[in-house]
Amino acid sequence: MPVPAYNLYPDFNVLRLSHVEFKVKDLAASKKFYTDMIGLQVTDETDDRIYLRAMEERGHHCIVLQKADEAYAGALGFKVFAEEELDKAEAWFKERGKPTSWIERPYQGRTLLTEDCHGIPLEFYFKMERLPHIHQQYALYKGVKPLRIDHFNCFSPNVDESVAFYNEMGFRVTEYTEDEESKKLWAAWMHRKGGVHDMAFTNGLGPRLHHTAFWVPTPLDIINLLDLMSTSGYVANIERGPGRHGISNAFFLYILDPDGHRIEIYCSDYQTIDPDLEPIKWDLKDPQRQTLWGAPAPRSWFEHGSLFEGVEPRAAELNATPIIAP
Amino acid sequence: MPVPAYNLYPDFNVLRLSHVEFKVKDLAASKKFYTDMIGLQVTDETDDRIYLRAMEERGHHCIVLQKADEAYAGALGFKVFAEEELDKAEAWFKERGKPTSWIERPYQGRTLLTEDCHGIPLEFYFKMERLPHIHQQYALYKGVKPLRIDHFNCFSPNVDESVAFYNEMGFRVTEYTEDEESKKLWAAWMHRKGGVHDMAFTNGLGPRLHHTAFWVPTPLDIINLLDLMSTSGYVANIERGPGRHGISNAFFLYILDPDGHRIEIYCSDYQTIDPDLEPIKWDLKDPQRQTLWGAPAPRSWFEHGSLFEGVEPRAAELNATPIIAP
Amino acid sequence: MPVPAYNLYPDFNVLRLSHVEFKVKDLAASKKFYTDMIGLQVTDETDDRIYLRAMEERGHHCIVLQKADEAYAGALGFKVFAEEELDKAEAWFKERGKPTSWIERPYQGRTLLTEDCHGIPLEFYFKMERLPHIHQQYALYKGVKPLRIDHFNCFSPNVDESVAFYNEMGFRVTEYTEDEESKKLWAAWMHRKGGVHDMAFTNGLGPRLHHTAFWVPTPLDIINLLDLMSTSGYVANIERGPGRHGISNAFFLYILDPDGHRIEIYCSDYQTIDPDLEPIKWDLKDPQRQTLWGAPAPRSWFEHGSLFEGVEPRAAELNATPIIAP
Amino acid sequence: MPVPAYNLYPDFNVLRLSHVEFKVKDLAASKKFYTDMIGLQVTDETDDRIYLRAMEERGHHCIVLQKADEAYAGALGFKVFAEEELDKAEAWFKERGKPTSWIERPYQGRTLLTEDCHGIPLEFYFKMERLPHIHQQYALYKGVKPLRIDHFNCFSPNVDESVAFYNEMGFRVTEYTEDEESKKLWAAWMHRKGGVHDMAFTNGLGPRLHHTAFWVPTPLDIINLLDLMSTSGYVANIERGPGRHGISNAFFLYILDPDGHRIEIYCSDYQTIDPDLEPIKWDLKDPQRQTLWGAPAPRSWFEHGSLFEGVEPRAAELNATPIIAP
Repeated sequence: MPVPAYNLYPDFNVLRLSHVEFKVKDLAASKKFYTDMIGLQVTDETDDRIYLRAMEERGHHCIVLQKADEAYAGALGFKVFAEEELDKAEAWFKERGKPTSWIERPYQGRTLLTEDCHGIPLEFYFKMERLPHIHQQYALYKGVKPLRIDHFNCFSPNVDESVAFYNEMGFRVTEYTEDEESKKLWAAWMHRKGGVHDMAFTNGLGPRLHHTAFWVPTPLDIINLLDLMSTSGYVANIERGPGRHGISNAFFLYILDPDGHRIEIYCSDYQTIDPDLEPIKWDLKDPQRQTLWGAPAPRSWFEHGSLFEGVEPRAAELNATPIIAP
Repeated sequence: MPVPAYNLYPDFNVLRLSHVEFKVKDLAASKKFYTDMIGLQVTDETDDRIYLRAMEERGHHCIVLQKADEAYAGALGFKVFAEEELDKAEAWFKERGKPTSWIERPYQGRTLLTEDCHGIPLEFYFKMERLPHIHQQYALYKGVKPLRIDHFNCFSPNVDESVAFYNEMGFRVTEYTEDEESKKLWAAWMHRKGGVHDMAFTNGLGPRLHHTAFWVPTPLDIINLLDLMSTSGYVANIERGPGRHGISNAFFLYILDPDGHRIEIYCSDYQTIDPDLEPIKWDLKDPQRQTLWGAPAPRSWFEHGSLFEGVEPRAAELNATPIIAP
Repeated sequence: MPVPAYNLYPDFNVLRLSHVEFKVKDLAASKKFYTDMIGLQVTDETDDRIYLRAMEERGHHCIVLQKADEAYAGALGFKVFAEEELDKAEAWFKERGKPTSWIERPYQGRTLLTEDCHGIPLEFYFKMERLPHIHQQYALYKGVKPLRIDHFNCFSPNVDESVAFYNEMGFRVTEYTEDEESKKLWAAWMHRKGGVHDMAFTNGLGPRLHHTAFWVPTPLDIINLLDLMSTSGYVANIERGPGRHGISNAFFLYILDPDGHRIEIYCSDYQTIDPDLEPIKWDLKDPQRQTLWGAPAPRSWFEHGSLFEGVEPRAAELNATPIIAP
Repeated sequence: MPVPAYNLYPDFNVLRLSHVEFKVKDLAASKKFYTDMIGLQVTDETDDRIYLRAMEERGHHCIVLQKADEAYAGALGFKVFAEEELDKAEAWFKERGKPTSWIERPYQGRTLLTEDCHGIPLEFYFKMERLPHIHQQYALYKGVKPLRIDHFNCFSPNVDESVAFYNEMGFRVTEYTEDEESKKLWAAWMHRKGGVHDMAFTNGLGPRLHHTAFWVPTPLDIINLLDLMSTSGYVANIERGPGRHGISNAFFLYILDPDGHRIEIYCSDYQTIDPDLEPIKWDLKDPQRQTLWGAPAPRSWFEHGSLFEGVEPRAAELNATPIIAP
């Protein structure tokens, strides 16, 4: 059994994933995509940055778009349970020899910047400016009607190492894919907030950001988005789906933003708060693992990802091949 | 313009498509598929035949399963507007040199058997035993919750010829695909009952039955069917979809019954009763023609079909290739 | 049996309901309601008139808003099957002693104005300007995503008389409510185009227009409209629903426009094209007649309607009371 | 501000609501209701007890039906985070002078029975027999397709007292209704598991159980249930809905089981895990509080509830009246 036991009492308390910054080459094009197609709300806008939140969120931002010469993913942002958890986090990362620094982020309180075992930049904070709730201002709903950011998924050069690292931080594996030959992990889904995941890892050239996911109300909203994108000039940005994942049971769609940052539209996974929840194991060769309905993912889905700025990825150590669409 | 003008006053009045008989090798397996997955209701059952209807239908049958040594499609059944239309139909087919005969069909009144320009067996009737309505007996709903049979789609060795023949019968083209080089029809959708089609033709080895479609309430019922089939031993029977057709705008799924007879699950096309409705033209090379969202159909979808019993198909005359999934 | 037999071969061929003009007191307020909430598309706009169509329609207008000092309904518009049907219609109404005149209507060809047995103004035409299809321009979809106008419903002072009159015109009763004591009709649903109705009649002070209905894709679109209206200043315009009608099996919502013209949002009725379709009878005292789920309609629903301009209504002859919410 | 501050570090860690026992007079009738209409799965059945779970749950039961001479609600069951939390809970309740005992419950580990400030019987446990997951066995889905138990709602004779008591236990108020005159709480929603509530209180003769709620996938499943119940002999069991709550934003339906135990079918509330989430305040006189779409709840909804066995309710101290349907 390659999955470590759930660490019930971690050294510091990470509440949930929170936000990410995307470096984008054409700020106007990205704004159009994230507001008209995804349907995020602009909460602030400067010459080189746009802050966005989803309809149910009261924190100031879940996506920050920053104008840049090259497309990159910035640090993955996580909210902790209380101010003092930040200091515990700093100690924890220092103990593991990771660089830590306190950085300034607009609209956020004290923010710790550090990195994970493979160099993924991570950002922890407790306080973020709170905004009035717009959850029931239905006239504002657009695009796929995003309710909240749901999770990150990253390519990892060694998923076993990633899982061990995040498990120590208190992330718990809910589902995982094992390579039956090597008995090594090929992918794993790990949560803090009580869904299937806040963070997932997939075997591959890494670290890179595979995708960022948004939770939407129903599968019909995803179908509506497909109709909208395909008749508004975004048909080439549809990469995979719609479908039901075997893993997580979620209804999904994968699309690419104008810079190729991959966004998953996601709904209908399940509640995972029981401490004694048993992780579900999948075989890498099970076609229903990817898509319950049997359709394999396209090659691009296994190969393309966003680089983290300044982080050189390395090849995956595990050489195993999932089922790929021809 | 390769599409003939709508024949507003045809020689006889075909009301709508009505039913088809499938020859199946394992009657029990087929019954299970059509009642548990499709959700049709059994209206009669003998040792070698099962009669089925959809939830909204008051006629006795839309599908008849007949035990046989080989899988075939039987005659395509159409209901006419009145008893006397049958005699007009007989005259019309005789005039064109087609064989005609009056046959016995259980639960049907006078029934004319004949064939179209390429040999597709056709059956016309006016009276069929009427059954109590079960439309609002929601406890009976199963599977994909089929409301009514919607259309047939056939491979034709010469779509221009098929269209000309059915157009004379009063079927009107609502949408069509043209091969831009030869200016010949590659496919056409023709209706009588006021939707996009009762009958469609696709260029290919023919005549063969490409599929039979059922109308269902909403796209979510199709998603529910995918979940059900993929976890009930039918994952390999899912061929294509779900998706939105560019042509017809319908939300679709294609599945195969245990003998390979293809069934489309279909909803959300549009009303076509205006006599001055303009047909919509599509280019064979337009990827959104097949699927508005861009995904091409798999090769099997262009190649596989059901033979009509006793009818030898011949190769398509038009040699043109649509976009096919790799 | 109070329902006359279906007149299969009427003297002229009415195709379907088509449009209606509403006199409104505040053109800007009405425009906002019909474009933002209902989601109709403006096809022309002058100082005192706004023309609107639904997403699937290729004819120029289904609703015309006209600025006026008082709110009224104008003539109910119907499209006939061919130009020559208009002359047959003129003869038919003249024969019955009804006033007829040929009127000018922008964007329409020859248009016959006349009236029914109780004075409802009716307008028949064949040609209306055809517009490019926007059915698949999903970025234009707003509000409840209306696909097409579906039916009119009118208060009638004598439903038996209304039914006899329209039955002669070829409208066929699909469902009806009988007062069990008097054996008189309390309400009836009559179609031409193959759904449950193009025109319905309800016992009451009449003639008045009870409502005009729009067909929408799914029940979820109706739920979305409720969320939108109730948080955009239109909560008081929600009158009844959502619910499932026993009659017609349709999923419905009734709302009022700024002048009190009642609009039904409607989907999921059934196909009625079989000439031998048996009408369904309901008892006035059956609570599931109104709403399958049991909830009675509010009093306003039985009492409020739009006057036809210049037509004095008279009291209903049948004195019978349906179930009314307390 | 009548709502106490969130107690971030309570004396013991309650994970979530878990289960309840209903005393029912006709076990067969109740089984039929809970399996055919609600769609729960039987996990064990004896002569006088039936154990049920929802589709996503891996614990053995969320509802236990027990044959009895009178209909009552049993203890409300909660799962704690770890075995040792049970001992901390025992101490906590003893300190407050509440009776505590360790009881035997089939399929559960150590179980503490105690009561709240007004005498509601409460049951805490950590271990319950875990069952194989059936979340993706779609052929088992029936009725409204219940995914998991979501919350309890109780009448309280003094909501301020109830809120103070549970707040100390670590339940946090997410939304509340204040009587503007007395500045007292009329209702409050309190969560542990990260949704709008595990437990809610409503002013009224209490303590009594107002309802038990189940989470379902989408609003369409609720509409399907209405169609099913209203045509399967359960139309009189539909009490209120469907609708969107202003409070919680959830889509809801209230139905009564054969003994009058009220069940809410519920979906689409929001995530509440941020420690700094601001509670939302509603005015008792705001009609959109109850139902965003404006329809008031019927009188029965404010008056009817299930008695807890052996617990005498007393009148509410706050005398204030919400908007009630006439």
